[in-house]
Amino acid sequence: MNNFIYDIPVKVYFGENQLCNLGKELSKYGKKVLLTYGGGSIKKIGLYDEILKELEKYGLELFELSGIEPNPRIQSVREGAKICKEQNIDVLLAVGGGSTIDATKFMAAGACTDVDPWDFFTKNAPIEKALPIVTILTLAAAGSEMDAGGVISNLETKDKIGRLAPVLLPKVSFLDPTVTYTVNPYQTACGAVDMMSHIMEVYFNMSNSLYMLDCFMEGMMKTIIKYAPIAMKEPNNYEARANLMWTSSWAINGFISLDKNQAWTCHPIEHELSAIYDITHGLGLALVTPRWLEYCLDETTVSKYYQFGTNVFDIDKNLEPMEVAKQSIKMLSEFFFNTLNLDDTFTKVGIKQEDFDIMAEKACGNNCINGFKKLNKQDIVNIFNMCL
Amino acid sequence: MNNFIYDIPVKVYFGENQLCNLGKELSKYGKKVLLTYGGGSIKKIGLYDEILKELEKYGLELFELSGIEPNPRIQSVREGAKICKEQNIDVLLAVGGGSTIDATKFMAAGACTDVDPWDFFTKNAPIEKALPIVTILTLAAAGSEMDAGGVISNLETKDKIGRLAPVLLPKVSFLDPTVTYTVNPYQTACGAVDMMSHIMEVYFNMSNSLYMLDCFMEGMMKTIIKYAPIAMKEPNNYEARANLMWTSSWAINGFISLDKNQAWTCHPIEHELSAIYDITHGLGLALVTPRWLEYCLDETTVSKYYQFGTNVFDIDKNLEPMEVAKQSIKMLSEFFFNTLNLDDTFTKVGIKQEDFDIMAEKACGNNCINGFKKLNKQDIVNIFNMCL
Repeated sequence: MNNFIYDIPVKVYFGENQLCNLGKELSKYGKKVLLTYGGGSIKKIGLYDEILKELEKYGLELFELSGIEPNPRIQSVREGAKICKEQNIDVLLAVGGGSTIDATKFMAAGACTDVDPWDFFTKNAPIEKALPIVTILTLAAAGSEMDAGGVISNLETKDKIGRLAPVLLPKVSFLDPTVTYTVNPYQTACGAVDMMSHIMEVYFNMSNSLYMLDCFMEGMMKTIIKYAPIAMKEPNNYEARANLMWTSSWAINGFISLDKNQAWTCHPIEHELSAIYDITHGLGLALVTPRWLEYCLDETTVSKYYQFGTNVFDIDKNLEPMEVAKQSIKMLSEFFFNTLNLDDTFTKVGIKQEDFDIMAEKACGNNCINGFKKLNKQDIVNIFNMCL
Repeated sequence: MNNFIYDIPVKVYFGENQLCNLGKELSKYGKKVLLTYGGGSIKKIGLYDEILKELEKYGLELFELSGIEPNPRIQSVREGAKICKEQNIDVLLAVGGGSTIDATKFMAAGACTDVDPWDFFTKNAPIEKALPIVTILTLAAAGSEMDAGGVISNLETKDKIGRLAPVLLPKVSFLDPTVTYTVNPYQTACGAVDMMSHIMEVYFNMSNSLYMLDCFMEGMMKTIIKYAPIAMKEPNNYEARANLMWTSSWAINGFISLDKNQAWTCHPIEHELSAIYDITHGLGLALVTPRWLEYCLDETTVSKYYQFGTNVFDIDKNLEPMEVAKQSIKMLSEFFFNTLNLDDTFTKVGIKQEDFDIMAEKACGNNCINGFKKLNKQDIVNIFNMCL
């Protein structure tokens, strides 16, 4: 069990009609607000008008950067940082899911330095300052609303790289489950898988960690398994949307992982898929995760699968551990591919064997991913082959 | 499900040898530090010397107030507030369990106002400012290290009253499980009951609340049930002490209760016991809680007991709900009175029937406690009678 520092001072307004606090919160940081968002959905659902009203009420000056992509591009980050500098922006307001919030974080950091923002990812350029960030979450998935990291893509170099820095933590996040009523079943499913993966990357760990946090992780996984299908069938189910939304934040805000020190596996592998094929992150994770679990299962790891199977999927505790483990992988696959209705093979989504080598190489280079089990390039190719 | 604002910006250093960060953290708030603590145990375990060294390293000026009592008295609060004013204290360093930290919070608030601190409790005097507070926790129980409240006793009036205010939240808390190695089995048991009760006051609730948080509460209760007996038998078991310590903070820092709006029941009832008899808070809670559960069980509430019994005590899900409910109360009683070895009747701890009326009256006056079930004065007397 490692020592840790817990320090997550994000203020969260959770629930309906909390946007009446937006102007008050933004105005703590200044007058000039850069609003960032993706497509036009925030206009369709009326959120854009609500935001404008709040800004007006507090006499805030609005600047805008829209069109932030899924798998957000470094080009958008550069553009946002430039606007911040040119217009002397005081605070950034990111409205969207993980993509918009991730991109906004690095705009906020890029605004405070002269280096090109891509250097944050390739040259580990220091991130010691960032403009304050406020977020309005519209998709329960990435957890960017309550964490200090983000992932940015560079289509030219086909890279998708993550970076963490405490100053990137949003100051305030607005989580209104009703805002996610319009998220379609496919995106709801992909969000659910992303959250599941954030938890599983931490949960599948053979080191001695806090039992209390294992219980919390199991609870969050049960929450996702229970409510994702409900949200898909009844998009306006408040209880389902609320449980998914609050779980998205706690799956990755650091609380569950602080006492552990383990590299993630499926996320970096998936980043290579979506870097080349631009598929939805959650879909890529759904394809890789059950095969990764299957690949890592052996006598040394089976106890964790037993814990997972009995506590999350309620598999009979009296069965042999190896039997529980296999059943748990099967039930997870069924959840991803049947219940959530996601494509279950690389072939179906168009990922080709010819790219396996290059993707595996990019995921770990000549080294290993030091995760749940140490995986080298060949291991990753083997897992890819299981996904065909 | 209620809207809520999540805002718990306490920074926590968790683990061994983290005190090397104490001077750095304290010096953020100024030079003059008022150290508060209870008896001499912090000297015996070497903590006092460590603190002095850290203060010296950063050139901080030390003031002291020791002798803070269990069930801390308003007299200590007044004294601390007076020292803060006279010496222009910049920051308070509370070293101890809930009693010391609770008392220190109201010293910090008392230092910023001219009203008598007892007015915070009897006249709802405003608490809008407080000096910054840093804590070093020595007992896993009350959770005061990460919450914004405290309870103070007045022996003259035989009152024990709680109060909450956001400005009372500690800035930084140091949680080192090894510091609790010297906590004896009885105090370890009482701490465990206190935590259990913090969770049960929230968990036993018939309103629609977040399933994800119910899972977390069940996880914390399982953690206490698993590790409290280990910590009693093996006081130096790091894993047990760490799990109990982190659970103590999360049982009451607000995370589990934000989406609910329900008065607590056993705590205010118990406060009347310890106000008159000065018994350990956890012992009083152990006596009252199983009887309260028994008293509140009926067809309208049985579903919550079923959830509790099957998820926390792993009782067979196929049994009748009412049977599960009764078994769960029995298992909780066995945990408190056999496993934790606490006295199981009022008679054994000297609480007399002649005081039932006055204690019940003080707990709810002419009104009701609007908790899990609405209880009036007679209900509370009935519960007391079950404890004889």
